[in-house]
Amino acid sequence: MKKPRLMTPGPSPVPPEVLLELAQPVYHHRTAQFRATLARVQEKLSWLFGTSQPVLVLTCSGTGAMDAAVTNLVRPGDSVVVASAGRFGTRWRQIAERIGAEVTEIRVAPGESVEPDQLADTLRRVRDPLAVFATHCETSTGAAHHPAELCRVAHEHGALFVLDSISAAGGMELRVDAWELDIVVAGSQKALMLPPGLAFVVVREPAWQRIRSHPARPFYFDLCKLAEKAQQQDTPFTPAHTLIAALDRALERLRAEGLQNVWARHRRMAAACRAGVRALGLELFARRPAEVLTAVRAPAGVDLAALLGWLEQNYGIKFAGGQDELKGKLFRIAHMGYMDELDVVAAMAALEMALKQAGWSGVRAGAAVAAAQEAVLQMQ
Amino acid sequence: MKKPRLMTPGPSPVPPEVLLELAQPVYHHRTAQFRATLARVQEKLSWLFGTSQPVLVLTCSGTGAMDAAVTNLVRPGDSVVVASAGRFGTRWRQIAERIGAEVTEIRVAPGESVEPDQLADTLRRVRDPLAVFATHCETSTGAAHHPAELCRVAHEHGALFVLDSISAAGGMELRVDAWELDIVVAGSQKALMLPPGLAFVVVREPAWQRIRSHPARPFYFDLCKLAEKAQQQDTPFTPAHTLIAALDRALERLRAEGLQNVWARHRRMAAACRAGVRALGLELFARRPAEVLTAVRAPAGVDLAALLGWLEQNYGIKFAGGQDELKGKLFRIAHMGYMDELDVVAAMAALEMALKQAGWSGVRAGAAVAAAQEAVLQMQ
Repeated sequence: MKKPRLMTPGPSPVPPEVLLELAQPVYHHRTAQFRATLARVQEKLSWLFGTSQPVLVLTCSGTGAMDAAVTNLVRPGDSVVVASAGRFGTRWRQIAERIGAEVTEIRVAPGESVEPDQLADTLRRVRDPLAVFATHCETSTGAAHHPAELCRVAHEHGALFVLDSISAAGGMELRVDAWELDIVVAGSQKALMLPPGLAFVVVREPAWQRIRSHPARPFYFDLCKLAEKAQQQDTPFTPAHTLIAALDRALERLRAEGLQNVWARHRRMAAACRAGVRALGLELFARRPAEVLTAVRAPAGVDLAALLGWLEQNYGIKFAGGQDELKGKLFRIAHMGYMDELDVVAAMAALEMALKQAGWSGVRAGAAVAAAQEAVLQMQ
Repeated sequence: MKKPRLMTPGPSPVPPEVLLELAQPVYHHRTAQFRATLARVQEKLSWLFGTSQPVLVLTCSGTGAMDAAVTNLVRPGDSVVVASAGRFGTRWRQIAERIGAEVTEIRVAPGESVEPDQLADTLRRVRDPLAVFATHCETSTGAAHHPAELCRVAHEHGALFVLDSISAAGGMELRVDAWELDIVVAGSQKALMLPPGLAFVVVREPAWQRIRSHPARPFYFDLCKLAEKAQQQDTPFTPAHTLIAALDRALERLRAEGLQNVWARHRRMAAACRAGVRALGLELFARRPAEVLTAVRAPAGVDLAALLGWLEQNYGIKFAGGQDELKGKLFRIAHMGYMDELDVVAAMAALEMALKQAGWSGVRAGAAVAAAQEAVLQMQ
């Protein structure tokens, strides 16, 4: 018996009742039934994002929502600043450059986060910045940013603030209205406990003004059209409506738990994971680690691929390795969505066993588990 | 007991084993498991489309694939011709205009198809047309086009030919290579027997040349990037991979049936439906009807909404009404995908009953059923 334990930073495990919803017979989407489902989902998404604005539901990957944010907001020649802590931050630059924007990228070293001071320094040098693009949780390095702080700096310099919260929304604290975030994008396959296929965009008024006056918004990703239809619990084109029905179930679970409790659970899972890996003599990769995943520096002298393979082979545990130039330098333990502290404790037990058989010197049996348990209990 | 009988032209019914695949635990997409699934899907899609080219899999609605085709191929100021028989044909114009193309639209009356002669006449008048955009099956009116004929005319005038086969692919004859179609797009929720969420694009060489040299392809919908990744059984961004695994199942069913048999089954269902509605004294809406749906002119003196409501209320049968200016003027019976002749015969029986209780004069009990049966038997 090999139980699958998916601990990758997207996709993440999907609760059984959500999976079973996906197996329901398909029904038509231009019906009272679907409008009622979409109304429930919209209401719960606004609750989840902390906004009175409608959260637009797009049929695409998270990157599609990033593309939508850029191509609706930015015009050729516009000056934008990208605060990048890695691969996903830099994706903002790639998209903005594609449409001919003037991009100034702040790119910090892997594991670092972009600090508000750095952003302020850059904004002082850039003429007429339209917007700052940032990342809530940089999934490639496990580094977190505090959106409220970066947003405040952007606003002080007259720039809009656009946040990729794809891997954070539903796991880490997010308050779109209170923090005055202008555009936020998210995806379905992370803390929202769904398979990939849906993405979300919320836009607040100053950004809407700019978007409405855009002379050539994209067709499929036209946010004005999406917003207009959303007011009638409808979509411009056939949506992935079976995923939306499943989202209704997933959001119901978060609602029942309570938003503060959801965030607290992720903080406890993160604390348990950090304490566990440190007790094994391993180092965190991110200086300011996120609460939805923990990136761990590859232990010196250990064959990382073999280590991850052992975990998967023996206990169905799937951690993620590093991407691009970080391949072999770190591994990433996701603790987001349909997961609790005990899943993290069990993962620590498995990691201990894997390191022990790999000959890693720092291992004392039970140490990581004990540290993880202790961290959880201290936070309850 | 109300059994659902979804007979709308997308979404269409999904076979049970495909639904159950969607309820499988989610696994990671950067794995040998997913690469093997994608390889199988790619191979079967190329078979289905009749092409040696890779069929690119996009995470979006069908309209997203149309948007991708236009924005990768066409540049501002390019001259294109749109052959439109209705709402979906005209969508090509809307997308092309959005990016600043010079669009000449041939728009025939509802129920008509664009004839090759009309296209030739138009192409003689248009200077340097880059491409002709057409629709295989115009889902809003049930009108079919023969792609090979229109494509030949386009090529004779030096234009590329781009086909929306969203509602036809997997139901109506389609031979991308033999007919020399340059770009074809399709969707998942029609004859391919999946929920919405995936779309497909196949591009042949002359169009690739133009796309490769495009100075500003879109980011999320960059077809070159998709093709490059597809060669490695990979995708640029997180795909809706659980839908792709389900597609593997759906395509396996089509493969087992055989492509000629799939097309013949749709021809028999169409013949049964046309014979049935005619036997009821009703008129087909399309002069050249498609084989995946039959549009029927609304019977004079009958409350169409009440008629469709009766069918749904009593037997769970969901036909589609008319859209936009065709609302109230027609209804549409889809016979695509996971459906056979007997489903159509049963629908005819229900339609007879519904019309009888609505007081429609032409009804003799059993007449539509008998005509549908006869049509099927004649084609076997």
